[in-house]
Amino acid sequence: MTVYEDALKLHELHHGKLSIEPKVPCETPEDLTLAYTPGVAQPCLEINKDPENAYRYTGKGNTVAVVTDGTAVLGLGDIGAVAGLPVMEGKALLMHRFAGLDAFPICVDSKDPEEIIKVCKLISPGLGAINLEDISAPRCVEIERRLIEELNIPVFHDDQHGTAIVVLAALINGLRLTGRKAEDMKVIVNGVGAAGSSIIKMMFNYGFKNILAFDSKGVLHPEKKDSYNPLKQELLEYTNLHGESPANLKEALVGADVFIGVSKGNLLTKADIATMNKDCFIVALANPTPEIDYYEAKQGGALIAATGRSDFPNQVNNLLAFPSIFRGALDAKATRITEEVKLAAAQAIADLIPAEELTEEYIIPSPFDSRVVPAVSQAVKEACIKSGYIRK
Amino acid sequence: MTVYEDALKLHELHHGKLSIEPKVPCETPEDLTLAYTPGVAQPCLEINKDPENAYRYTGKGNTVAVVTDGTAVLGLGDIGAVAGLPVMEGKALLMHRFAGLDAFPICVDSKDPEEIIKVCKLISPGLGAINLEDISAPRCVEIERRLIEELNIPVFHDDQHGTAIVVLAALINGLRLTGRKAEDMKVIVNGVGAAGSSIIKMMFNYGFKNILAFDSKGVLHPEKKDSYNPLKQELLEYTNLHGESPANLKEALVGADVFIGVSKGNLLTKADIATMNKDCFIVALANPTPEIDYYEAKQGGALIAATGRSDFPNQVNNLLAFPSIFRGALDAKATRITEEVKLAAAQAIADLIPAEELTEEYIIPSPFDSRVVPAVSQAVKEACIKSGYIRK
Repeated sequence: MTVYEDALKLHELHHGKLSIEPKVPCETPEDLTLAYTPGVAQPCLEINKDPENAYRYTGKGNTVAVVTDGTAVLGLGDIGAVAGLPVMEGKALLMHRFAGLDAFPICVDSKDPEEIIKVCKLISPGLGAINLEDISAPRCVEIERRLIEELNIPVFHDDQHGTAIVVLAALINGLRLTGRKAEDMKVIVNGVGAAGSSIIKMMFNYGFKNILAFDSKGVLHPEKKDSYNPLKQELLEYTNLHGESPANLKEALVGADVFIGVSKGNLLTKADIATMNKDCFIVALANPTPEIDYYEAKQGGALIAATGRSDFPNQVNNLLAFPSIFRGALDAKATRITEEVKLAAAQAIADLIPAEELTEEYIIPSPFDSRVVPAVSQAVKEACIKSGYIRK
Repeated sequence: MTVYEDALKLHELHHGKLSIEPKVPCETPEDLTLAYTPGVAQPCLEINKDPENAYRYTGKGNTVAVVTDGTAVLGLGDIGAVAGLPVMEGKALLMHRFAGLDAFPICVDSKDPEEIIKVCKLISPGLGAINLEDISAPRCVEIERRLIEELNIPVFHDDQHGTAIVVLAALINGLRLTGRKAEDMKVIVNGVGAAGSSIIKMMFNYGFKNILAFDSKGVLHPEKKDSYNPLKQELLEYTNLHGESPANLKEALVGADVFIGVSKGNLLTKADIATMNKDCFIVALANPTPEIDYYEAKQGGALIAATGRSDFPNQVNNLLAFPSIFRGALDAKATRITEEVKLAAAQAIADLIPAEELTEEYIIPSPFDSRVVPAVSQAVKEACIKSGYIRK
């Protein structure tokens, strides 16, 4: 039996992974006079008086919709809204398991960004927050931007920022371990989709100013700006500030300190790593096969390697971030999740490993480490309050 | 402490009434390889191959969205989408408690029927069925009709049909108890909103052919057809087939056998009931104050009285119907809930009381009677299959 066969059996056995259960007594007629009619009229009237009371008398403030259009599910691509449902259910169960949130999937039967925006806005009254999920780039960036502007509840596209937060946490600990500084590091990012673009922005905002980004056609370059979509145009504010023109990715790697791959697997060899600076960092996130194998990267001279896989050290797992992001934002009564909040989350994840425990093989804590959610959600909550984007 | 104060406390204590929990193991990294990545890719691929597999590998087939726009919440009227949330949560918890369904609220931030239809269609891929709730008439009728036509999952507006099913069950048992026939009964219905219109259609389809319906301006009459909205125009197919013109409701009651009130309370006196035929049936559903008090109706000469209240005998409670309607329809793989299915539900509810137990004060079973859901959902399932509106 493979994990895929086992997973299929598990999904068939339970017919889905979520159970939506009462958390108030409802065994007797008397119970129902409080939980339902006639008593329920009272919280309705209180919310009618002041919509903020929905946070007091309903589950709104603990409820997250996991919204997808099924266009970028896992590494499977555009498989359709309903085929994304097992992932959305999985995300919702992780929200509960790790942060006590009540989350449910919304699979949107449209690929039109305007319709996806519209449905999120229309269903927002009952929601505490929205987790956008597995929506293809660059559409996802615009959809998220519009919803952040137009809604008064936190909206967070996990594929963009969840991964970026954990990558930054790993890099922060790489710097701690080696005593280097962000501004001294030359960074190559291969892939400027959902995750790549957010990784670039977060790294820049943290202090990495020397970044070259590659798409499938080569390095992003200011001279090509007019040929780019709005997302790539925006990335020119964060990358290639000196107008470098390496012929290709491998040439750019020569003398670089950090490689971050968020594109396709089996791209690099240990010989490529050997051309990079001594003690370089390799973050190879292509799934399920990384851009370079963990051990090959190490043999090529990388001090630190990290991948998306759980069978190697240093797994970049966005499960470290998204439950705490939503927990902290909802606890703070946040109306949006700012860049500063994401940086605070990355720093909190990094800080969970004390200096004396930090090693080349332990720069990222485990999502099952019970300290993660309390510490990260508290840091998120504080950063949200500091941001000023909170209700009332 | 009143029930309203107690209810408010309960709602504040729990911050809502639903908990969305994992029903698969998710304690270890190994658990997550099956419930989430990488194993989750397999059910995704199977659903991508055939969307019907969503019923096999996800919770879709057990999931009901409870959708409102907040325009007709309880007896409170148009209080807004978010103020309806406590009722929607209550409905969802009853779905789980009584029929093991996984239901969640969707509060739609629009009163435009086209937008409500649109949002239901856009979120339908992840849903097994849709329960429309507390949407004002006559909009609710058109919204439901369109969704039934345009979607391939059951859509059911409980305020229309849930009440109607239980009213018909009560009348069926009234006939059983007295040995009378539906076609011999003269029926007066006051109120032609969501519930009233469905009650009229269901009664007609069951065999009550002599029905007069009143709105706030008087009896519905074929000569006034051009002044009516489409819903009232349609009701002329079921009511006043002989073009009667009683001056008002009280005049119409003289010599009638059944009065059904779904409008406003304190409308009739026992003197009015005394003008009706001997052993008449009174179903007075105005909430919280019925059109006539239970005991006053009996004193006026009613053989049977029923109200929406739990503190009198014969409570008309749609909780007897909607959990079983959705349970049976989903178990049958139904694509719609037809008139015949609703009639089957009414008959099954009525049949739960054996002839020897039937009394004037016991024509409707209790929703807490554990025989209700198995019997009614089975009848609904069989009627759905017989209707032919099932998948594959």
